[in-house]
Amino acid sequence: MVKVVILGQGYVASIFAVGLERIKNGELGYYGIPLANELPIKVEDVEIVGSYDVDKSKIGKPLYEVVKRYDDGEIPESLKNIIVRKGIHLRSLRNLPIEAEGLEDEMSLSEAVERLVEEWKSLGAEVFINVCTTEAFEPFGSKEEIVKAIEENNKERLTATQVYVYAAAKYAKEVGGAAFVNAIPTLIANDPAFIELAKESNLVLFGDDGATGATPLTADVLTHLAQRNRYVKDVAQFNIGGNNDFLALTDKERNKSKEFTKSSIVKDLLGYDAPHYIKPTGFLEPLGDRKFIAMHIEYVSFNGAIDELIINGRINDSPALAGLLVDLARLGKIAIEKKEFGPVYEVNAFYMKNPGPNDKPNIPRIIAYEKMRMWAGLEPKWF
Amino acid sequence: MVKVVILGQGYVASIFAVGLERIKNGELGYYGIPLANELPIKVEDVEIVGSYDVDKSKIGKPLYEVVKRYDDGEIPESLKNIIVRKGIHLRSLRNLPIEAEGLEDEMSLSEAVERLVEEWKSLGAEVFINVCTTEAFEPFGSKEEIVKAIEENNKERLTATQVYVYAAAKYAKEVGGAAFVNAIPTLIANDPAFIELAKESNLVLFGDDGATGATPLTADVLTHLAQRNRYVKDVAQFNIGGNNDFLALTDKERNKSKEFTKSSIVKDLLGYDAPHYIKPTGFLEPLGDRKFIAMHIEYVSFNGAIDELIINGRINDSPALAGLLVDLARLGKIAIEKKEFGPVYEVNAFYMKNPGPNDKPNIPRIIAYEKMRMWAGLEPKWF
Amino acid sequence: MVKVVILGQGYVASIFAVGLERIKNGELGYYGIPLANELPIKVEDVEIVGSYDVDKSKIGKPLYEVVKRYDDGEIPESLKNIIVRKGIHLRSLRNLPIEAEGLEDEMSLSEAVERLVEEWKSLGAEVFINVCTTEAFEPFGSKEEIVKAIEENNKERLTATQVYVYAAAKYAKEVGGAAFVNAIPTLIANDPAFIELAKESNLVLFGDDGATGATPLTADVLTHLAQRNRYVKDVAQFNIGGNNDFLALTDKERNKSKEFTKSSIVKDLLGYDAPHYIKPTGFLEPLGDRKFIAMHIEYVSFNGAIDELIINGRINDSPALAGLLVDLARLGKIAIEKKEFGPVYEVNAFYMKNPGPNDKPNIPRIIAYEKMRMWAGLEPKWF
Amino acid sequence: MVKVVILGQGYVASIFAVGLERIKNGELGYYGIPLANELPIKVEDVEIVGSYDVDKSKIGKPLYEVVKRYDDGEIPESLKNIIVRKGIHLRSLRNLPIEAEGLEDEMSLSEAVERLVEEWKSLGAEVFINVCTTEAFEPFGSKEEIVKAIEENNKERLTATQVYVYAAAKYAKEVGGAAFVNAIPTLIANDPAFIELAKESNLVLFGDDGATGATPLTADVLTHLAQRNRYVKDVAQFNIGGNNDFLALTDKERNKSKEFTKSSIVKDLLGYDAPHYIKPTGFLEPLGDRKFIAMHIEYVSFNGAIDELIINGRINDSPALAGLLVDLARLGKIAIEKKEFGPVYEVNAFYMKNPGPNDKPNIPRIIAYEKMRMWAGLEPKWF
Repeated sequence: MVKVVILGQGYVASIFAVGLERIKNGELGYYGIPLANELPIKVEDVEIVGSYDVDKSKIGKPLYEVVKRYDDGEIPESLKNIIVRKGIHLRSLRNLPIEAEGLEDEMSLSEAVERLVEEWKSLGAEVFINVCTTEAFEPFGSKEEIVKAIEENNKERLTATQVYVYAAAKYAKEVGGAAFVNAIPTLIANDPAFIELAKESNLVLFGDDGATGATPLTADVLTHLAQRNRYVKDVAQFNIGGNNDFLALTDKERNKSKEFTKSSIVKDLLGYDAPHYIKPTGFLEPLGDRKFIAMHIEYVSFNGAIDELIINGRINDSPALAGLLVDLARLGKIAIEKKEFGPVYEVNAFYMKNPGPNDKPNIPRIIAYEKMRMWAGLEPKWF
Repeated sequence: MVKVVILGQGYVASIFAVGLERIKNGELGYYGIPLANELPIKVEDVEIVGSYDVDKSKIGKPLYEVVKRYDDGEIPESLKNIIVRKGIHLRSLRNLPIEAEGLEDEMSLSEAVERLVEEWKSLGAEVFINVCTTEAFEPFGSKEEIVKAIEENNKERLTATQVYVYAAAKYAKEVGGAAFVNAIPTLIANDPAFIELAKESNLVLFGDDGATGATPLTADVLTHLAQRNRYVKDVAQFNIGGNNDFLALTDKERNKSKEFTKSSIVKDLLGYDAPHYIKPTGFLEPLGDRKFIAMHIEYVSFNGAIDELIINGRINDSPALAGLLVDLARLGKIAIEKKEFGPVYEVNAFYMKNPGPNDKPNIPRIIAYEKMRMWAGLEPKWF
Repeated sequence: MVKVVILGQGYVASIFAVGLERIKNGELGYYGIPLANELPIKVEDVEIVGSYDVDKSKIGKPLYEVVKRYDDGEIPESLKNIIVRKGIHLRSLRNLPIEAEGLEDEMSLSEAVERLVEEWKSLGAEVFINVCTTEAFEPFGSKEEIVKAIEENNKERLTATQVYVYAAAKYAKEVGGAAFVNAIPTLIANDPAFIELAKESNLVLFGDDGATGATPLTADVLTHLAQRNRYVKDVAQFNIGGNNDFLALTDKERNKSKEFTKSSIVKDLLGYDAPHYIKPTGFLEPLGDRKFIAMHIEYVSFNGAIDELIINGRINDSPALAGLLVDLARLGKIAIEKKEFGPVYEVNAFYMKNPGPNDKPNIPRIIAYEKMRMWAGLEPKWF
Repeated sequence: MVKVVILGQGYVASIFAVGLERIKNGELGYYGIPLANELPIKVEDVEIVGSYDVDKSKIGKPLYEVVKRYDDGEIPESLKNIIVRKGIHLRSLRNLPIEAEGLEDEMSLSEAVERLVEEWKSLGAEVFINVCTTEAFEPFGSKEEIVKAIEENNKERLTATQVYVYAAAKYAKEVGGAAFVNAIPTLIANDPAFIELAKESNLVLFGDDGATGATPLTADVLTHLAQRNRYVKDVAQFNIGGNNDFLALTDKERNKSKEFTKSSIVKDLLGYDAPHYIKPTGFLEPLGDRKFIAMHIEYVSFNGAIDELIINGRINDSPALAGLLVDLARLGKIAIEKKEFGPVYEVNAFYMKNPGPNDKPNIPRIIAYEKMRMWAGLEPKWF
């Protein structure tokens, strides 16, 4: 059994919840879950024990009702039992058409942290899955600075994610171990301050930014070219979608968080910084969660020949990430059992766009996959 | 030094020749050559010592003149010294607008084989690179059948490639070792009869069908999906070009040779035989050597979501293969030195569409690359 | 009111039937029907009075049940009242996995024609919509030959469509007027023999081959280029689908019918026969009715610059044609009223891939649209 | 003979100059020039008599040298005779890596206008072609405001283009007629103040923003859908390039000018404002003048079916516009002769993204083409 607490009950978390219950009910196969039923912990063993959000219209509602907003099918009854709790918002819903409400509106951040830790104890939380809206953030220089910002109730300095990690660390220290899966771009598993905090608090860190969408595919295509020693002249990658995450990214500051993560793959995989334009490009409401991607890559082959690749796709954003989360919840529990606290590179290199810790590079996903399997105690598939 | 004999002085062989000389002259970098200058044998050490063709308008001409038909740039003077010799055609130029002429027109196949072996001895040949036109062929059941077909001068049963391999085996046995690189779809490294012949004759076999174009890319994209446990509903892959190879493939029988090779990747990589349509599609003269490819892949993600990928490209056919041949020539020599006769799977799995021997599957190219490096005595790059 | 008889109750006819009823029930808008509610005859006035097929599993069944095979939604009850009747098959279902049964199995073609004419009289038929499977066929040289083939019961010479048109002509002559909409590639509105027959029999001819899918779009894109005097170097157009029509086109003979129609646009619109490869390419079952198209166009712009366009799409085959048929049924009635018998070029030029009569060219669809409006008594939209 | 003065000797103007001379020398055909040799004024009759720029490194140089920067081929000697003159820059090169220098640096704007008018008289200018860098601008409310801004030397209020038009109007009034072709997005033929000024000054206005690239193609594709009454759910259109124009568009203000023009086609052609994202997207230097475009259109067909189109392209930006300019120069002279001063909608509707005057809509290009031909005294091609 893995007891999961959701932080941010939006599209991804809702698909995660509904998909999990459908699998338990035998209505759905394991598609989209990389390790399917290969792990000792079964997909059916993952249980959502708590859910947090800051959208006024969700707080206090059963998951069953929230999930309905994101999935047209029949919603499993079992989701009626979980009630969405009030979380931390800070600046996270700024400029979205959502009325936000957070614990910090009624108490200090320190008190909010205490409150969360107490709630989590009562829930028996093991793995925290952070799928808040993409934030504009600033990394911390040292653990002390984090502590200070919390104590001084510095709401301008901190983001929701940063406060959640702080609370999760406090919780992990008290209960002997927990895992934090940071599926958004805020640097956590790549921020030395949070790494230090996590290590000394028995907190496993998976992060940062779940590796879904166009970027991991670009990574594998660039590896394909690198292995044939083709010289990449330029890479353009656009994507546009209609979910709240794309709406949030129309904010310049948030967009930067994303751009940073996405661009690092080019140099890491090619060995040189080929000119590139890789950014979330825009918001177009009718596309919904099924984003449109367009990629253009130009490269030099033997004898100076110029080749060109164009990749387009329609990709469901939230299910792609939700499927990875089913693995990450289980791998989080395995890491706790292995007592591998702090960032686990073997896991992050496959599942995360910006794999922590910060001093580790992107490697080809196809190879990262094999290493991750071995870390998890499975046979490599092809190596 | 690696002494190379070309069999089939068409587009690929001409780009190979001109590119090599340009590199030696310092006019061109190593782009498109996977192992670049990492091997102990340098790119500059590869030397073409002989060239064979069956196009009447090429036989007896210096390489310098033949190569001009395929490359607009300035042709290196050094190619003036090699004269194209008369090879074997059998049915290989049937239905192409080319007047063919072969040794078998003037003598029996046995005599032709003798003649070739003698010529190769005088040239000091080490590696044979077979880049004939795609053939319609039938594999052999046993080594004895091959011998019999040659002895009986059975021109209907044999293809040019099959005769060349037979001759190369005879030659290798006499001189103590040689390598045959089969870059076309005719089953050689996958035909148990030829494998047996090669092993007992000290002949290294690299083959079959050089892994360029859309298929290896499809392989890596399918691996990308398989690793995320996405269920592939269907794969369509078209390609159309304007070079002689595409013209040859308008012949139904030849096309089948190609289709077979291309399709095997689906089951090998996904683990199930997803419905697919993967075939060379047509000939369109103005596209020239820069073919157009179009691929469509539909798959199921988590929670039953349906995603779609479309990949298009303009890819120079001949340079892509020519770049691989620069490695294969050198790896051929290395294999001879290692005395690894018969098909070398570690090399074939990366460089060949249909990696021999026949009982070995396709594996993801990105992983095959690392294994090939290790076979060649290099560090893996990421593993 | 327009009384319609369907010939070939497959995918297109089923979507036509179900869509019409949904519109009448107020469940669906006019999308996909070019003239929507602009004509004096309303969409709601179109009524299916008869339906013919030769699939044993459909004959005798209510439309309600047949239509269910092609549409997942709720099927309008009103379709329970029409029973599918036995038609003519001749060679039309050859090499499809369907058990066929036709009137000609029990009687001579002349008798079958008589029988059909009698049935149509009892139904009060006005417009015949022919959406049989694509046929391999041979045009007729003269009206007399058609008559002779029927009289001699020459089943090898005739296709189902040709017999249906003959019967429709006979019927039209007797009742004073009818319209035949030939939405498949068999040459009817382009066959001088059938044109003569139609003219003297008061039969309106709309045809040949409904202009849906990639070809009309290609036509407009080529026009776009022609108007800017860009020189088209080459055009490749692939399409692959999973419905019965694509399965039928895997038959070489049928495919030729289609290829002919599609290719004529190039010369008609550009004024020169740019090298092109425009063919239905393959069958891939899971794509269903939503085919995948890929198009590549290369052209020369000012100062010798080379540009390139690639167009991909997923297009629902049957609804596209079904929407046009709603117009054609109404325009058929208008033509009868106008007594414009034989092929009506103004209508065909917009709605048909191969607009009859045979001596008329393709013109840009965007212009044909305006001319068709004027023919129908509507204001041009932009001209 | 048409005497042309270039305003802004960048990529487009250079390709225009070199292409024209090559045609005169018989080295190049008429490809990319819509009306080719159909007009009474021949392509060979167009003569560049003056050229203005504000890039310090171009001023005073012969066209021959400037043009070399943009074209790899052999440059016609005839371009040695034209020397690039100093123009007006105002804010036009802000944030580009170019050192700018303009007449307004040494004198007041009124004096600069006088100077230009005098120079143009000596050159015998007839048609002005404005191909300055895209500007951030504010339209004028009345002719009086323009006059006032010039007189008060208000450099903040005016852009280079606005000053050039003012000078051209003054010139036209004095010499009895001239034409101004505004090929950039600054509103001129759509600004009532400039329209008034032009009409009373005998100045023909062609504008605004030359209709090249993805937008006119989108227009024709949207028309294609509108004519079939397909309901467009959403349109996304990206484009990225590596020329100075794309670099300039990374400036937010300039980008807005462009976005406005591009977006208006959606409502004008569909009749409703389908959600869209149509913007120049980014700068990627190695793409050079051959931009990459990606378009995604989703629409509803009959019976509620959802179709999807994806269009990609590599398009040479400058030659596309340069080819149109060859027509516009000749049509400008024809308009002068016809005394049609102010904006000429018949011409603008085909050649301009935002066809002036402002109260006129976009119409399908394919139809605009026919109307333009008729205005120019030619037969329509298909209508």
